[in-house]
Amino acid sequence: MAVNSPIPVAADLLPVAGIELGFAEAGIKKPGRKDVLVMKLADGATVSGVFTLNRFCAAPVQISKENLAAVKAGGKPIRALMINTGNANAGTGEAGMANARSTCAALAQELGCDAQQILPFSTGVILEPLPVAKIVAGLPKAIQNLKLDNWFNAAEAIMTTDTQPKAGSRTVDIAGHKVTLTGISKGAGMIKPNMATMLGYLAFDAKVAQPVLDMLVKEAADKSFNCITIDGDTSTNDSFMLVATGAGSLVVDSVDAPEYKALAAAVTELSVFLAQAIVRDGEGATKFMTITVEDGKDAAECRKIAYSIGHSPLVKTAFFASDPNLGRILAAIGYAGVDDLDVSKINLYLDDVWVAKDGGRNPDYKEEDGQRVMKQSEITVRVKLARGSAAATVYTCDLSHDYVSINADYRS
Amino acid sequence: MAVNSPIPVAADLLPVAGIELGFAEAGIKKPGRKDVLVMKLADGATVSGVFTLNRFCAAPVQISKENLAAVKAGGKPIRALMINTGNANAGTGEAGMANARSTCAALAQELGCDAQQILPFSTGVILEPLPVAKIVAGLPKAIQNLKLDNWFNAAEAIMTTDTQPKAGSRTVDIAGHKVTLTGISKGAGMIKPNMATMLGYLAFDAKVAQPVLDMLVKEAADKSFNCITIDGDTSTNDSFMLVATGAGSLVVDSVDAPEYKALAAAVTELSVFLAQAIVRDGEGATKFMTITVEDGKDAAECRKIAYSIGHSPLVKTAFFASDPNLGRILAAIGYAGVDDLDVSKINLYLDDVWVAKDGGRNPDYKEEDGQRVMKQSEITVRVKLARGSAAATVYTCDLSHDYVSINADYRS
Repeated sequence: MAVNSPIPVAADLLPVAGIELGFAEAGIKKPGRKDVLVMKLADGATVSGVFTLNRFCAAPVQISKENLAAVKAGGKPIRALMINTGNANAGTGEAGMANARSTCAALAQELGCDAQQILPFSTGVILEPLPVAKIVAGLPKAIQNLKLDNWFNAAEAIMTTDTQPKAGSRTVDIAGHKVTLTGISKGAGMIKPNMATMLGYLAFDAKVAQPVLDMLVKEAADKSFNCITIDGDTSTNDSFMLVATGAGSLVVDSVDAPEYKALAAAVTELSVFLAQAIVRDGEGATKFMTITVEDGKDAAECRKIAYSIGHSPLVKTAFFASDPNLGRILAAIGYAGVDDLDVSKINLYLDDVWVAKDGGRNPDYKEEDGQRVMKQSEITVRVKLARGSAAATVYTCDLSHDYVSINADYRS
Repeated sequence: MAVNSPIPVAADLLPVAGIELGFAEAGIKKPGRKDVLVMKLADGATVSGVFTLNRFCAAPVQISKENLAAVKAGGKPIRALMINTGNANAGTGEAGMANARSTCAALAQELGCDAQQILPFSTGVILEPLPVAKIVAGLPKAIQNLKLDNWFNAAEAIMTTDTQPKAGSRTVDIAGHKVTLTGISKGAGMIKPNMATMLGYLAFDAKVAQPVLDMLVKEAADKSFNCITIDGDTSTNDSFMLVATGAGSLVVDSVDAPEYKALAAAVTELSVFLAQAIVRDGEGATKFMTITVEDGKDAAECRKIAYSIGHSPLVKTAFFASDPNLGRILAAIGYAGVDDLDVSKINLYLDDVWVAKDGGRNPDYKEEDGQRVMKQSEITVRVKLARGSAAATVYTCDLSHDYVSINADYRS
């Protein structure tokens, strides 16, 4: 189903020393489906993350932020991440906070640490109470099967209606040190159906100081998970977490260290892969589009325009239809909210085809050239603004009949 | 097809003294379809308008703005409005400007006035050259059938793939003066298919000073045409024009005149009717939703939240499915971009059903009550922010399979 995105092979997903993964079938989703995941971290691991900006952010998001802040304030390190699917614990008020805290306390007791050392995550239906008893009952089983080579199962455990698990591994050599990176993500699926939540987890075995990891997670997210859109709906639960287990030989203490750049490049590349996997498996997706806006005054205006194109239902349905109805892209550029944009200087390309020149149709543009590119399953839209040297890229998919079907089916 | 929007009856559309309408079948669209409309104004008429904020605004929009500015700078009054469908003359650069000017010149010659006294409007496919020869050839025929009671034909002439014409009339008594108002609009249709452009024209027979009319058109638009959304795509050609023919006995010289308020109320009411008619006939619409956000700090943040709900594909597909999946509405409130929003104070109602209380599910809410309202064809979503006394309302429709079909059909 997903666009040019083969199902990962379990044997290709490399264990990362210092992080063990265990899952349970706790009965939150349908029977026989993994719905609880525990990731247990070695001593010396550091954790950092970025979270949804949605004001209705879920209880687990609020608690994960609190617990990460406590570490930075000198508290004990994070010992485990815990994820449940089937329920988002969002829009649940004070009761939702108490419920999330009690699942943290239960896992802490099992692992012999404080509740504050647990980061909780939830994804699924919102406005409904978290099934605490089911989750707590599932934790011992998840702990029982904690293993280093459980990444494929982990990728399956965080799926909602994703059509396939999303995972990848890399190894890189940085200044003579071998670093292993493995990550998983889940995206535009739904529960029953409901909010599409994006979750991403990426672990590697270098030792990275907390402030450096904080910088690294932002840098990677800004080029990956912060550059994707399926339908413009920002979930209440979106989270991307980076874990440096410290079990390997590479140590990065400063963003100025020569190793930082190489590590950041490797983390970013795998993050982009995991983020793109979410778009490729977007609800009803049949095409994968890369939208690049160049020569802007600043990155913010380039992102504004790229997202305006990427969110336009008219643009997305034209891509679904393989219809080179490219005036729709110009219109989306025009209403992006860049008030002093001089449209007479805009150039638009579809892959190698020069469609619009100086704000109007390129006299040399032929519809059959646009048609050829539109029939592809991967398409790059490139907009040149002629205002400066900034750029931004956004990844998105088309809008198909299946998107409506998936989201309009009555929750059963 | 349109939601609770009967087709207007030609005999119910009242002539407005001082404005004559004539149409032609100029062959821009398919043969046998009206595609050119001329509205000829009496001496003493004043005209004002609001236009799309899209930076790729079409050549006719730029020229109409120029020509209205020339009147305000002391130039000769507007004598006629000219509309063609089948081609938007947008994304057409300098050639598009020259083409629009030559159609104005042709009509001016026919009417014995200056080209600057004509306001041109176009709607249809973008990025393609305006068929000037066809339009110019159609003008004499349109002039030949200029009539006071041609409003139904006019409403048909500006249709693109609207499923039905949109028009309405009102009479009001203001301080002993009878005022007749008639208006037409077209909306979320497309050409071949292409940009959905919103056009609205409303004429009445009072005499209104230019600065007063300028105020009036903004006031009416802000409560009508500026409060609707089908899919969030702002066209390159959107225009709403108000014509005060001056042929009746009512004279309004100042916004402080006691008659102003009554006139503004009548104009606004008819504008809301015409704007709602566009949403009711939105592409693939099966439901009409009124989204009201109350108790905000200012109208701007209320609009932001109302549009966030109205644009959310997840919300719109849930309405299409009659699925009370109402967490999606909370999520859309949360990502609307109101950074200091305290979600724990938010209350959400679906018609008379209290769904969310203080940011969480209302303990008394029953799914069957939500279900009952969701099955209706007209639904009001009401959000209370508990931050102040401002409010805003947005009108929208659902997102159905037909929306995708209409917009994904290849242009034939």
